[in-house]
Amino acid sequence: MTKKKIAVGIDIGGTNTVFGFVDRDGNILGEDRLRTNHYDEVEVFIAALYEKIMVISHKITEPVELIGFGIGAPMGNINKGTIEHAAGLPWKGIIPLAEIFKRHTPLPVMVTNDANAAAVGEMIYGGARGMKNFVVITLGTGLGSGFVIDGKLVYGHDGFAGELGHTAIRPGPSNRDCGCGRKGCLETYVSATGLKRSLLKIMADSIQPSELRKYSFDELDAELIHEAAKRGDPLARRAFEHTGRMLGFKLADVVAHTNPEAIFLFGGLALAKDLIFEPAKEFMEENLLSIYRDKVKLLPSELSTQNAAVLGSSSLIWSLEES
Amino acid sequence: MTKKKIAVGIDIGGTNTVFGFVDRDGNILGEDRLRTNHYDEVEVFIAALYEKIMVISHKITEPVELIGFGIGAPMGNINKGTIEHAAGLPWKGIIPLAEIFKRHTPLPVMVTNDANAAAVGEMIYGGARGMKNFVVITLGTGLGSGFVIDGKLVYGHDGFAGELGHTAIRPGPSNRDCGCGRKGCLETYVSATGLKRSLLKIMADSIQPSELRKYSFDELDAELIHEAAKRGDPLARRAFEHTGRMLGFKLADVVAHTNPEAIFLFGGLALAKDLIFEPAKEFMEENLLSIYRDKVKLLPSELSTQNAAVLGSSSLIWSLEES
Repeated sequence: MTKKKIAVGIDIGGTNTVFGFVDRDGNILGEDRLRTNHYDEVEVFIAALYEKIMVISHKITEPVELIGFGIGAPMGNINKGTIEHAAGLPWKGIIPLAEIFKRHTPLPVMVTNDANAAAVGEMIYGGARGMKNFVVITLGTGLGSGFVIDGKLVYGHDGFAGELGHTAIRPGPSNRDCGCGRKGCLETYVSATGLKRSLLKIMADSIQPSELRKYSFDELDAELIHEAAKRGDPLARRAFEHTGRMLGFKLADVVAHTNPEAIFLFGGLALAKDLIFEPAKEFMEENLLSIYRDKVKLLPSELSTQNAAVLGSSSLIWSLEES
Repeated sequence: MTKKKIAVGIDIGGTNTVFGFVDRDGNILGEDRLRTNHYDEVEVFIAALYEKIMVISHKITEPVELIGFGIGAPMGNINKGTIEHAAGLPWKGIIPLAEIFKRHTPLPVMVTNDANAAAVGEMIYGGARGMKNFVVITLGTGLGSGFVIDGKLVYGHDGFAGELGHTAIRPGPSNRDCGCGRKGCLETYVSATGLKRSLLKIMADSIQPSELRKYSFDELDAELIHEAAKRGDPLARRAFEHTGRMLGFKLADVVAHTNPEAIFLFGGLALAKDLIFEPAKEFMEENLLSIYRDKVKLLPSELSTQNAAVLGSSSLIWSLEES
C-alpha cells in the first residue's frame, strides 16, 4: 500500500507556535501548538517542538510518509535558513533555525517569512494554482508581501525580497512613525494599525458624529472599525477608503516592477471586502500606465485565514518537491 | 575550422535603426544603420533592414555562424515578439515584429524594449557578469528599467515588467505632466528632461545667479547642465541633487521589491557620475529598511554608451543560447 505524502507546516509567532501535518490537497491531518515565549533558548524550543510534532505524528492513523518541514517565522531568511533580528521573538540576533532543526531530522527543512509562505501557499493550495506571476500582500498588524515570478518565489540576493510594508509612501518628511525606526512606511497606513491611525486623524479633522468616538485608541481595532463601516459610520468608511487608496497607490508600483497576473490580499483587512478592495482597485488603476490597465486581477486570498500560516509553511516543502 | 558564432543586435529608434554583428565577447564585427522614419510600411522596413544586414554580413571576412537576431524597440514585448502602440515609431497599433522578421530567416528572433536589452547586455557583456539578481535603470529622454531575477530577465505576465519610469513619485495631485498622459511619473523627475524641468523650477524659486539663466528651455539639455554643475554652478548642482534624490527614493522601493545585489545606472545622466550617484545613494540608503542597508551596490553600467543598444539587443540571443 502506498503511503500518503505529508509535509509539516510550522508557524512561529511571538506568543504561540502552531504546526500541522498537511497533505498535497491542503488537508490537515493533525495539529498542535506550543508557547514560543516559554523558551529562552532556541535549541530547547526546537527540541520541545520536534518532540511535540512526533507525538502528534503517532496519532495519525493512516499510513503516511513525512517529506519535510516548512517553517514560517518573522524575518525568516529562505536563502540561509535563519531568522535575523526578529523583534517579536525571544531569541536575539541571527538564529540558524534550519541548522538547529536539522539536528533532529535528515528531511528537508525550509525557513521563510510569513508573507513568502502565504505566497507559496496560495500557489500550492489556493487561488494562484496554475499562475506563474503573482503577488500576495498580507495585511495584519503590519504589511508583508511575497512575489512569485515564473512559478518561483523571489528570494532576492540576500533572501529578503518583498518587504513592501517598508516602502515609503512619499519622498521627504512624513508624520507617521514606523516600528522599523523610520517614518511614512506603507504599513503605517495599510495594516490593522494603519487603519486605526487613519481613523484617528480623520476623527480629529472631522466634526461628523461617529459611534467610534467613544473608544480609546487602545480599545479600537480593525474589527470594530469594520463593523462600524458596515453600519454606515462615515468616519469608519473614510478610514477604509484612505487605507485602500494608499494600498492601491503602491500596488500600481508593484505592477510596474513585475507585471503580475494577479495580486492577492490576505489577512484581517482583506475580510472587509469591498471596503478595502474598491478603493484599492480604483487607485491602483488610476496610477497604472495604460499598457497595464484593466489587466491585473485584485483578488482575496483563497487560503482560509485560520489555517493559512500552517498551510503556507507546509507548501514550501511541496514547492521543493515539485520544482 | 570551427566558425565563430555571432548574433545580430538591432536597435529600432524613432529616427534611425542601427544594427551590428556581435560575438560572445561583445566585439562588433560589422555594423550599419538605416532611417526608420523613411518607411511607412513595417513590412517594407523589415525587408530593407534584412537586406542591409545581409550586405554587411558578406563583408565579414572571418568564418562566422549567425545564431539569431535580437531586436530592441520602444514598447517591445518579449512574450509576444510585438511592439505595441510605440508613440515614437511610424507604425501604429500592435506590430508583430518577430513574425514579420521571421519571414526572412529560420533563426531565432527576439524582441524586447531598450531597457530590458540593456539589462541582458549588462549580464552578458558588462558589470553584471556572474550576477543573478540585479536591475538596470536607463536614463535618457525618459527612464526605463530591466529586472534580472535568478539569472533571468523578468518578463511579467503580459511581457511588460519593469516600467519604473511610470511609477508615481507620491500619491495624490502632482504638478508635472508626463508624456504617458498622467502626472508625477518618476521620469518627469529622473531623466534628461526631468533634470531640465527641475532646473527651471529651482531657477524660478532662487535669486542666485547662474550661467544657465541665459538659456531658453528649448536650448537647455542635460549636457549643458552637467557642464555648468562641474564648473560649480549652484542651480545646476541643486538640479542634479534633486534628480538624484528622487531616483534614490524610488530605488529604495526597487530594493524592497526584489532585493537585488546591484543596481546599474545607464545612459546620459549616469555619465554625470557623483553628481547623480551621490544623492541617489544617500537617499536610497535613507529610505531602506535596516536589513537592506549598505548591501546593495549602485554602479555605473559597463556597457559603452555608443554601442550599448546593439550590444543589448544581441545579448538576447546569447542569453537564449545559454539558458
